[in-house]
Amino acid sequence: MHALIGTWKMCLSGAKEGFGLLAAGSSAADAVERTIVRVEDEPGYTSVGYGGLPDSDGHVMLDAAFMDGGSLRMGGVMSVENVRNPIRLARALCGRETNCLLAGRGAEQAAVSFGLPLRDMRTEYAMDKWKAAVPEKHERLSAYRGHDTVCVLALDDAGGMVAGTSTSGLFMKAPGRVGDSPVIGSGFYCDARYGAAAATGLGEDIMRGCLSYEIVSLMRRGAAPKEACEEALRGLVARKLQLGEDEGSISLIALSPDGRFGAATTLSVFPFAAGAADEIALYAADGRCSPLRRVTEQEMEGEP
Amino acid sequence: MHALIGTWKMCLSGAKEGFGLLAAGSSAADAVERTIVRVEDEPGYTSVGYGGLPDSDGHVMLDAAFMDGGSLRMGGVMSVENVRNPIRLARALCGRETNCLLAGRGAEQAAVSFGLPLRDMRTEYAMDKWKAAVPEKHERLSAYRGHDTVCVLALDDAGGMVAGTSTSGLFMKAPGRVGDSPVIGSGFYCDARYGAAAATGLGEDIMRGCLSYEIVSLMRRGAAPKEACEEALRGLVARKLQLGEDEGSISLIALSPDGRFGAATTLSVFPFAAGAADEIALYAADGRCSPLRRVTEQEMEGEP
Repeated sequence: MHALIGTWKMCLSGAKEGFGLLAAGSSAADAVERTIVRVEDEPGYTSVGYGGLPDSDGHVMLDAAFMDGGSLRMGGVMSVENVRNPIRLARALCGRETNCLLAGRGAEQAAVSFGLPLRDMRTEYAMDKWKAAVPEKHERLSAYRGHDTVCVLALDDAGGMVAGTSTSGLFMKAPGRVGDSPVIGSGFYCDARYGAAAATGLGEDIMRGCLSYEIVSLMRRGAAPKEACEEALRGLVARKLQLGEDEGSISLIALSPDGRFGAATTLSVFPFAAGAADEIALYAADGRCSPLRRVTEQEMEGEP
Repeated sequence: MHALIGTWKMCLSGAKEGFGLLAAGSSAADAVERTIVRVEDEPGYTSVGYGGLPDSDGHVMLDAAFMDGGSLRMGGVMSVENVRNPIRLARALCGRETNCLLAGRGAEQAAVSFGLPLRDMRTEYAMDKWKAAVPEKHERLSAYRGHDTVCVLALDDAGGMVAGTSTSGLFMKAPGRVGDSPVIGSGFYCDARYGAAAATGLGEDIMRGCLSYEIVSLMRRGAAPKEACEEALRGLVARKLQLGEDEGSISLIALSPDGRFGAATTLSVFPFAAGAADEIALYAADGRCSPLRRVTEQEMEGEP
């Protein structure tokens, strides 16, 4: 059995390629990397890789992580600049016994030492958005809804499971700000015995509940992927409401070792790509925990 | 009821001050900050704050975190240089809805914006150690046993609970390397309803099991602090052995909302400071899960 699930409509075409690799017998690691590289390389997606929107200083600072569910080892990079494919750097770090999680210039140095390509990640569009936003930079960031990390979970025919994430983080974030995406247990977690999970949304909220680890824990105790996503989300949302906060902006995905997938969200609609066995397609979850439904790209017009 | 627990013998004198604050009615936040500042300021402790041993480039790069168990909010800094008290910076970031976790230069900028003191954190002793190690910098790091993060958990009479961590990380670490200490769920977690936990040891291993979140989860389901530490540790160690690895170097502490404390370790002896109600003292845990025992500083001669 092989399967793959990835966040947002933006990953559909990459996910099709990644899924094709799995169908041809490739590893979950290759499928995750391929899917995410496709999203990173596309300048039209303004929350991941090339074309990502800058921080308040005008720098495009990237976070990414890669976790192998067989060895429980991860690689991650945080607040790194000029690395063309952060997911490839995260993968290259995965497996190290020490120094697997790197921040800032040290992460960029590692990319150089691995021979990975560097690139100015700023597009003209992104810099125009930044120039327009600078006068208001001290305003609240909440106007910018797109917390749209690409997260991909894959299962290969050999039982391998991998989780990967990549993001440029919040537009106009403070310099050095790191969200949940490179933080194990929050942005992602993967244990090939029990399943994999990942999160997209406001990282500062996702981290409060270690939501990806919580989902995998629930699957370890028998929950189905969708049920685990919903229960983990319900726990944190209940606490947020109790604290007088709103529900927040959080979407979750999960994959079980037998190829079932699930998702949950606080949004009215959360599109994701998913497939098992024969076919990959676009699905949507909603904030009312309705059954996951297949949707078309046209229906998801205007969604990330 | 008030209580406090902190890792290693090195935190004992700070822990006595922090515990004194709790006894006088101060908040858990103040007690944690005071305890950790004392360790950070002491040049003789080579794994935390001033006097910490450098990375392979000769820079002393610091990680710290602060989590409030009432709001589930955290602040954290990673791979930051020249900040005299990283725990104070982490505390200052705690409570922010966004931008609460900062890496590198951005974290240093935040310290400046908060008006916190900067300092060259390198002592002559630390730089001498570095100069001697440079010729062997490509050797394995395993020779250096001291993964000695200061982690402090406190409960105040109002029921407030806080977790804090601070470290300079592995000696001769790769530039930008971040361990578990600023990573929520791995190096620390605190939920005032269920308890607090923190970890010290090889961060790359601790992160694989999200050990602090796992401990608090076990307490949520009814485990006592010591039992929760032992069970979380047993799970990861079993997996490491299964993967053909050794047990690793991991020590864990936990505190319950009713002031009971616990610890577990893979080491032959792991000293920690702990106290509840009237008295704070030095204790030791061992790798055989024996009952925690009170020890003297003399008995712990040679231990960190």
